[in-house]
Amino acid sequence: MRSQEIIAKKRDGEELSAGEINSFIDGICDGTWADYQISALLMAMFTRGLSIDEQDNLTRSMLHSGEVLDFSDIDAPKADKHSTGGVGDKTSLIIAPLVAACGVAVPMISGRGLGHTGGTLDKLEAIPGYNVNLSTGEFRKIIKKCGFAMAGQTAEIAPADKKIYALRDATATVPYIPLIVASIMSKKLAEGLDVLVLDVKTGSGAFMREFEDSKKLAEALVKTGMSFGVRTEAVISDMSQPLGRFVGNAHEVYECIKILKGEVDTLSQPTWVLSLELSARILVMAGVEPDIEAARELAQAALDNGSAFEKFRMNVECQNGDTQICDNPERLLDNSLIETKIVAMQSGFVSEIDTLAVGNAIVAIGGGRQKADDKIDHAVGFTCETNVTQKVNVGDTLGVLFCRSKEQADSVVSEMTAAFKISSENTQSTPQLIKEIIS
Amino acid sequence: MRSQEIIAKKRDGEELSAGEINSFIDGICDGTWADYQISALLMAMFTRGLSIDEQDNLTRSMLHSGEVLDFSDIDAPKADKHSTGGVGDKTSLIIAPLVAACGVAVPMISGRGLGHTGGTLDKLEAIPGYNVNLSTGEFRKIIKKCGFAMAGQTAEIAPADKKIYALRDATATVPYIPLIVASIMSKKLAEGLDVLVLDVKTGSGAFMREFEDSKKLAEALVKTGMSFGVRTEAVISDMSQPLGRFVGNAHEVYECIKILKGEVDTLSQPTWVLSLELSARILVMAGVEPDIEAARELAQAALDNGSAFEKFRMNVECQNGDTQICDNPERLLDNSLIETKIVAMQSGFVSEIDTLAVGNAIVAIGGGRQKADDKIDHAVGFTCETNVTQKVNVGDTLGVLFCRSKEQADSVVSEMTAAFKISSENTQSTPQLIKEIIS
Repeated sequence: MRSQEIIAKKRDGEELSAGEINSFIDGICDGTWADYQISALLMAMFTRGLSIDEQDNLTRSMLHSGEVLDFSDIDAPKADKHSTGGVGDKTSLIIAPLVAACGVAVPMISGRGLGHTGGTLDKLEAIPGYNVNLSTGEFRKIIKKCGFAMAGQTAEIAPADKKIYALRDATATVPYIPLIVASIMSKKLAEGLDVLVLDVKTGSGAFMREFEDSKKLAEALVKTGMSFGVRTEAVISDMSQPLGRFVGNAHEVYECIKILKGEVDTLSQPTWVLSLELSARILVMAGVEPDIEAARELAQAALDNGSAFEKFRMNVECQNGDTQICDNPERLLDNSLIETKIVAMQSGFVSEIDTLAVGNAIVAIGGGRQKADDKIDHAVGFTCETNVTQKVNVGDTLGVLFCRSKEQADSVVSEMTAAFKISSENTQSTPQLIKEIIS
Repeated sequence: MRSQEIIAKKRDGEELSAGEINSFIDGICDGTWADYQISALLMAMFTRGLSIDEQDNLTRSMLHSGEVLDFSDIDAPKADKHSTGGVGDKTSLIIAPLVAACGVAVPMISGRGLGHTGGTLDKLEAIPGYNVNLSTGEFRKIIKKCGFAMAGQTAEIAPADKKIYALRDATATVPYIPLIVASIMSKKLAEGLDVLVLDVKTGSGAFMREFEDSKKLAEALVKTGMSFGVRTEAVISDMSQPLGRFVGNAHEVYECIKILKGEVDTLSQPTWVLSLELSARILVMAGVEPDIEAARELAQAALDNGSAFEKFRMNVECQNGDTQICDNPERLLDNSLIETKIVAMQSGFVSEIDTLAVGNAIVAIGGGRQKADDKIDHAVGFTCETNVTQKVNVGDTLGVLFCRSKEQADSVVSEMTAAFKISSENTQSTPQLIKEIIS
């Protein structure tokens, strides 16, 4: 069937067969579908809709467009976590060593930041020397050695998704659940997992701002994971304020190491609470513990006894990172940066934090990307010193920006100040970090 | 406004402003919109729909994306004809000299054949030496000299349309009336016309097969022309069988010259009838004659007295063509071609001719294009010896194929035979050539 005929069929609202979807994905991989044909079909899918069968077939086609990893030679349950993306969202760096310390293998394939949300690969690369470009062989060897490995999506994993994602980003076809599901799940299902936990964010810094949309996405992801034979759960978590204390690549790694060393301060507490919950969900699904309470206890113990931290250090070593940052995480922080305080312009209560604006400010000062090939500055960042519902007086510090130059700071300071909405009455209730579990 | 935001707006079914549509068309022309973004918006327009305002704004933007010709220095009404495309549809070559002979100037900008329908430029290039690549200056000079000129769309005329059309063809976004209207009218309105007659085809060989669709398109085209200040009418004409006797570039020129020389045989009669009607419509709208009967008489006289033929000869000379084909049109026919008869496989009445199949067969033997950069063989063709409702006996010749090789003929002979449906009962009524006038 010619590409035009397949496009026309979806354009007219008809359901595409598995064969037609395969032909589309094959055409992406072998170059017989031009970019403009791919984007036309993606828009037709977006506007006319995809059925559950089409969504599953698209996921399956994209999954099989590349290599599907097989870790059956590793004698441990294989699990991973995936987040839909947020600001200050750094739990991967804690969850992977934590569950590895509890006997679960984590073949984690992550992405880079794009737009206002960060990416695990960028955070890891804030560690001097850390190598995220692993061959499948190296990836396997590191998992065997230290229980987890963290790498970028190779050209072999779901290559059709790479192409599709880049086009969706440029053609306003990102926010459609079946396309999101196929994109996420084709990559995650290629990791050869037994267990997958999804962290679906909701709120002003999330990709899906509305709870109901986030819930629909979470349900679709869980359903797809299960139908492909992977034990899957989703946690819908709050993104109405940055997660934990820091935003910015090096700063976030710093926060994670501090947590892994057992130094969880009040501002970092949410990072740990969410990491613990996601880890415990993995441990139960992986059959390591029979229930969530026991799993939380086991994960807490792996933090407390230092075994998770040791797993992290071993991984940094395996992936060629500078292990000195483990003993002395302050090495990650660049003292030459210019610190700019964001202060309260009135007294009252923090009623809202525009988390998207915070994420965009970090991108603007070089900590993230507008375009996929932008270079980033790992050192710049922000420390968020206030939470929603907190009482502040005029002039109080809401947070501190760490910029490369005064000009950078000046360019975002007013947006950052405006991101913190302060009202005289405390009408807001504290946002619930974990909103719902979908299983 | 970023391209993604404009795409997202239409994706969500909102109406685009004139400014947003301008930004789209500007982005096409200056290359800031990538092909995959253009095609995504075109698909969103197709599936979500365009309002009349959006259609007008798109037409206007596309029109002003390039040069708008001004022939106000030519002291005659300026008129053109445009056809939505058919098989054996060759009337331009008759209408232009005919109305020119009656005092109307015709700055005709035509296209090439693509898919099963032919194009005027390809037909003209069947005349040895004929040059369709005219600068605006040459175009003007030739119109002044002989009353009409026939050229291809230069890079200066509606450049946005060129880009959009190529993408629509590849992305199944052709058959949507507002996009068709913007494409046709942006080019025609750039010709600096006073009068435009549209020949909207309907039936199995037309782009719009169903009469109601053709009528909607005709109405939209006329409405647009009028709203841009051009006197416009549309004739909805039959394309349920090839028009006239011949299909194929050189053969069609041959048929036209024979008609212009006054030698209208029975099989060519519909070509003449339709040409006369379209010409008469132009003459009335141009104010040359007060009513359609008088206009038909004037046009018939221009044929009968040889003045139309002389205009044609003068044009061939002006555009560097070999004028010997005027006196001896048989020179256009290549005697080395292999003739293959298409014969009736049963006795009965021709109930239907699959005109699309006939057009596709001509493409297959090299007389048309699958892709815009395909080379064509001007000499190959088909002479259609039967019409719908005609009585035939088994073994009767339905038509004759003229191919370059035996293999070519063999490759299409069964499709050509099948294209002529023969039924034992004569239930079909003779297709009405001119179905409706939209004014």
